[in-house]
Amino acid sequence: MRTVTFLPGYRKIEVEPGTTILDAAQRAGLNINVVCGGQGKCGKCVVFIQSGKVEFDRQKYGRFFSEAELQKGACLACEASVQGDIHVVIPETTLIQEQKILVEGVENRIDFHPSVKKYYVELQPPSLADPSPDLSRLLWGIQKSGGPVAEKMYAPLEVLREIPGILRHSEWKVTGTIGLVPGGYRLLDLQENDTSSRVFGAAVDLGSTTVVVYLWNLVTGKVVSVASNYNKQISCGEDILARVNFARKNGLAKLQSLAAESINQALTTASNTAGIDREDIYEVVVAGNTVMTHMLLGIDPAYMIAEPYVPVVRRALSVAAGRIGITCNPNGGLFVFPAVSDFIGGDIISDILACGMNEREEISLLIDIGTNFEVVLGNREWMFSCAGAAGPALEGGEVIFGMRANPGAIEKLTIDPASLDPTYSTINGIRPRGICGSGLIDLLAELLAACVIDRTGRINTEISNPRIRKTAHFPEFVIAWADETEINKEIVITENDIKNLIMSKASVHAACVTLMKEAGVSRREISTIYFAGAFGNYLDKKNATTIGLIPEIDPGQIRNIGNGAVAGANIALINRRTRKTLDEIAYKIAYIELNAESAFMEEYTSSSFLPHTDLSLFPMVQKMLDECRIRKA
Amino acid sequence: MRTVTFLPGYRKIEVEPGTTILDAAQRAGLNINVVCGGQGKCGKCVVFIQSGKVEFDRQKYGRFFSEAELQKGACLACEASVQGDIHVVIPETTLIQEQKILVEGVENRIDFHPSVKKYYVELQPPSLADPSPDLSRLLWGIQKSGGPVAEKMYAPLEVLREIPGILRHSEWKVTGTIGLVPGGYRLLDLQENDTSSRVFGAAVDLGSTTVVVYLWNLVTGKVVSVASNYNKQISCGEDILARVNFARKNGLAKLQSLAAESINQALTTASNTAGIDREDIYEVVVAGNTVMTHMLLGIDPAYMIAEPYVPVVRRALSVAAGRIGITCNPNGGLFVFPAVSDFIGGDIISDILACGMNEREEISLLIDIGTNFEVVLGNREWMFSCAGAAGPALEGGEVIFGMRANPGAIEKLTIDPASLDPTYSTINGIRPRGICGSGLIDLLAELLAACVIDRTGRINTEISNPRIRKTAHFPEFVIAWADETEINKEIVITENDIKNLIMSKASVHAACVTLMKEAGVSRREISTIYFAGAFGNYLDKKNATTIGLIPEIDPGQIRNIGNGAVAGANIALINRRTRKTLDEIAYKIAYIELNAESAFMEEYTSSSFLPHTDLSLFPMVQKMLDECRIRKA
Repeated sequence: MRTVTFLPGYRKIEVEPGTTILDAAQRAGLNINVVCGGQGKCGKCVVFIQSGKVEFDRQKYGRFFSEAELQKGACLACEASVQGDIHVVIPETTLIQEQKILVEGVENRIDFHPSVKKYYVELQPPSLADPSPDLSRLLWGIQKSGGPVAEKMYAPLEVLREIPGILRHSEWKVTGTIGLVPGGYRLLDLQENDTSSRVFGAAVDLGSTTVVVYLWNLVTGKVVSVASNYNKQISCGEDILARVNFARKNGLAKLQSLAAESINQALTTASNTAGIDREDIYEVVVAGNTVMTHMLLGIDPAYMIAEPYVPVVRRALSVAAGRIGITCNPNGGLFVFPAVSDFIGGDIISDILACGMNEREEISLLIDIGTNFEVVLGNREWMFSCAGAAGPALEGGEVIFGMRANPGAIEKLTIDPASLDPTYSTINGIRPRGICGSGLIDLLAELLAACVIDRTGRINTEISNPRIRKTAHFPEFVIAWADETEINKEIVITENDIKNLIMSKASVHAACVTLMKEAGVSRREISTIYFAGAFGNYLDKKNATTIGLIPEIDPGQIRNIGNGAVAGANIALINRRTRKTLDEIAYKIAYIELNAESAFMEEYTSSSFLPHTDLSLFPMVQKMLDECRIRKA
Repeated sequence: MRTVTFLPGYRKIEVEPGTTILDAAQRAGLNINVVCGGQGKCGKCVVFIQSGKVEFDRQKYGRFFSEAELQKGACLACEASVQGDIHVVIPETTLIQEQKILVEGVENRIDFHPSVKKYYVELQPPSLADPSPDLSRLLWGIQKSGGPVAEKMYAPLEVLREIPGILRHSEWKVTGTIGLVPGGYRLLDLQENDTSSRVFGAAVDLGSTTVVVYLWNLVTGKVVSVASNYNKQISCGEDILARVNFARKNGLAKLQSLAAESINQALTTASNTAGIDREDIYEVVVAGNTVMTHMLLGIDPAYMIAEPYVPVVRRALSVAAGRIGITCNPNGGLFVFPAVSDFIGGDIISDILACGMNEREEISLLIDIGTNFEVVLGNREWMFSCAGAAGPALEGGEVIFGMRANPGAIEKLTIDPASLDPTYSTINGIRPRGICGSGLIDLLAELLAACVIDRTGRINTEISNPRIRKTAHFPEFVIAWADETEINKEIVITENDIKNLIMSKASVHAACVTLMKEAGVSRREISTIYFAGAFGNYLDKKNATTIGLIPEIDPGQIRNIGNGAVAGANIALINRRTRKTLDEIAYKIAYIELNAESAFMEEYTSSSFLPHTDLSLFPMVQKMLDECRIRKA
């Protein structure tokens, strides 16, 4: 065995010779950024060997490093293997950082009907006059204490075996935990003495990037803590496609256990924060996209990523949490949200439940934007849905200084129409490192309003301002000067970046319009537009309309539901009656395959302008642009 | 490792040095008789070492052997440990012999509604036009092929994970196995191609002595084979009390696994005989007494053997067969009969189902006699039950030449009233070794009819006949002379043996009368008396009445249902609708604790005569005795 010591922090781990530094780091609990899934392709997992022997092909991977870096012992964690006892420095930029995510939901309007309840009972010991069996005695006791009818409750073998010992050791004073499961009420647990105040449940948003856990006290109906962490699967690939390919090559087991571990880690954090025992968590409700939930359940997602895009299962599933490695109460249950298709997963069903559009007569439009986007249009009678690739532009990819919503990202921005000087705020308030999705939308809208760009996204280089520059490649606009930034470089946006952003926003807008045409609904008939996901939450609604990301409606009718996935999971956790609704929603939604719709391609072309070729669809934006132009002139 | 070769038969097995010969024999599949559970106490497990080295304490255990036997290398299999390669002779008397048991039932009158069915489907592969999920595609296919409604079927995780691979590898031609379970229809299995003709189920009588398995083809509704073997738990003690005490000392695990192994061995024999794969057995239905089913399920039976005699569970249970070590299809289910109390177990519920007394208006009396006896009185409206210790006399214990129904046991007997010479038949027709229960009842009735004994059981030693002798201890009657027997000794019955038999029969009769009094039913209101169990089947009905084992009714109204436990298990296996009936029966039956009833003790005293103190209750017997007496005089 060899000792690997990670710096800073001096975290140590023993590994077999030949282990990669990436594996060693993961086992030491350090989350290294491996966008390519550890294939030596992305060059993000840079580490520096301070001492000791490693094997690393400098010829093959030297291109990722400067000479100075190589001097300092740089190598790729995924390709360097441990040979002797080593000291490794992991730079901060190599570690995955905690993302700013949204943990506020809509749980206040929901009735409290949890599916798990504890009953404390003091039983009469058996006697010759009443020699009824232990199980009957217990279940009758629970029934008398307000529980379900004894005949409808059943005990699984593992609990049954514990009953006689616990009843007698506790002198017939016990607490039984009853869970509602398909087919009846299940005796999940039997504990000595009165533990009836200790019933907890967890609602989980299993995102491909982030896992969010809400921990609920299922007696009081209150949230006791919230925790989140990165989806550890990121070590097998940053996006879903990379992970499915990883599974295809290496089997599903690692991705399955990483998904479970990611949830477990958040559960541990939440439990520790609340000061509760994880054994007192009796139910875990998980909403996630279809690939994520397949992976969590250990079901092959491979057939979803190629034509004809077929999931194995779409209905809601209930399994024993322990079966898939979730460490809560050993008899705790796991409820997994249903899906509509490969692209419209449990996370979107959860969004729908959270915004309540499935209950109303009025028509709503729900938009969830990440690397992919999903759109749902409908009401309590009908729903249409579609999904597409937004391109990474809106998440900060394909834009030179784009970045995720990490510390230092510009998230809000205005531009002074006269001086063209931006005013911005960054995440965590530190000096800027780049610009994230919400900042980019502000930027586009502000550049348009200031007439720096035209409706095709072209930068007007005739404006005389130091921030507007021609370069060898593309014209660019300087958002922040080098001395303002954390990275000691100017942060700029190029005309090419803007083109990429317009393509992304055009996809979303065209998807909305395609569904509206399919349903025969005009923008005036839409009562509410819901944004789900962190992206929507930080979005300036007016600016989103200005650039034509969404159909123009009154900004007062645009709502952010935040993390709808976890909000819906919360609802399903605390009100078991809503679970039936989930499968109903899933079966009600029609899925429109955009690639098969010529209407989508036409609308995409029309949408590739700011806000659109047809300004009459955006009367408010038209009015604003007219005013700006007059002011400028 | 050392090689142990067992003779005759030359069965070989490799064991670690130090292994007992008993363990080696059990692993080699040889069932050695260990009444004491292998504690070196009973001296029944005699074997002879032909060659090779063993360790054995001749000082301590020499008392069990004659000098001649020690010369031949006699030792106790449970105490002798293997040191070198050895050859061991196991005499026939040391092996547990196959008991004559009853495997004929009442299955012909039962409708065929098995709970497991296979559906072969040829599915359309998914396409962009129909990208529905694998599970839906499969379940809709099964529904279209006549299966249950797709929404009511569900797939457990282990099968779900297999679905995508099997569907594609088989080119969408698969056979799904659907089982009815609490809460819906479960997809138990998915196989490539058409295997729909291969669905089997097993009905099991788990007796404390014997395990009987009926293997059914659940497509054709026919029995394909029957197998039985000893309950291997006998190595932990011959009777239930000894086994519960063994569990108390050593834990339940060994008894649990021996119960499962006993069933597995019979399943293997039955499967091999029928030429089927055990993986094609999808359901196992088990009827057994309450202690046996608790042990099989790994549930502590300890609280049943002492006041207040409390089982852990009495309701019917369904568990995954694999969970308790039953090797059938990995997703196969195990259904365990419910019980009424510690003494009235699933075997008795099974008897009731088999005789159908629970369906009729007329009142029936059901009697199951072994070491213990159980009696049930009632009809479709009500039932009373009780149980007691018959004493081992009726099974051949507590009677000097009594024996179980093994080869050489006298099972039928008449006595010539003039010469007093018996005419008898033995099991397997060999020369007699002893006399079993049915023979003893004949003997008692014939001795009474021949006036050899009086109604108190006393032998009339004034009769001058070489078969009637006074001895130092008790007067005795010679059943067979030494030269007629296999054991080269006279087979006799003593007055003390007769007393023990009368005590046993008095218990049974008093139990019947106690229930009748409780229910306010006279013997004339009883339409049928059912005998369940092997004992009843070989019983002469008239003689059973003559000695007052049962209330006197017309012998034409006495029926033998044979092995009612397996008959009822067969019914529950092939007609799932009867399973609901079982819990109904179990809840309907009132259990009368005989020890708490003064009426029982009084009636026991009155019953301790042949047939009873009050001859007016036995008018036919009275008539017969009068005739005999007249003839004699």
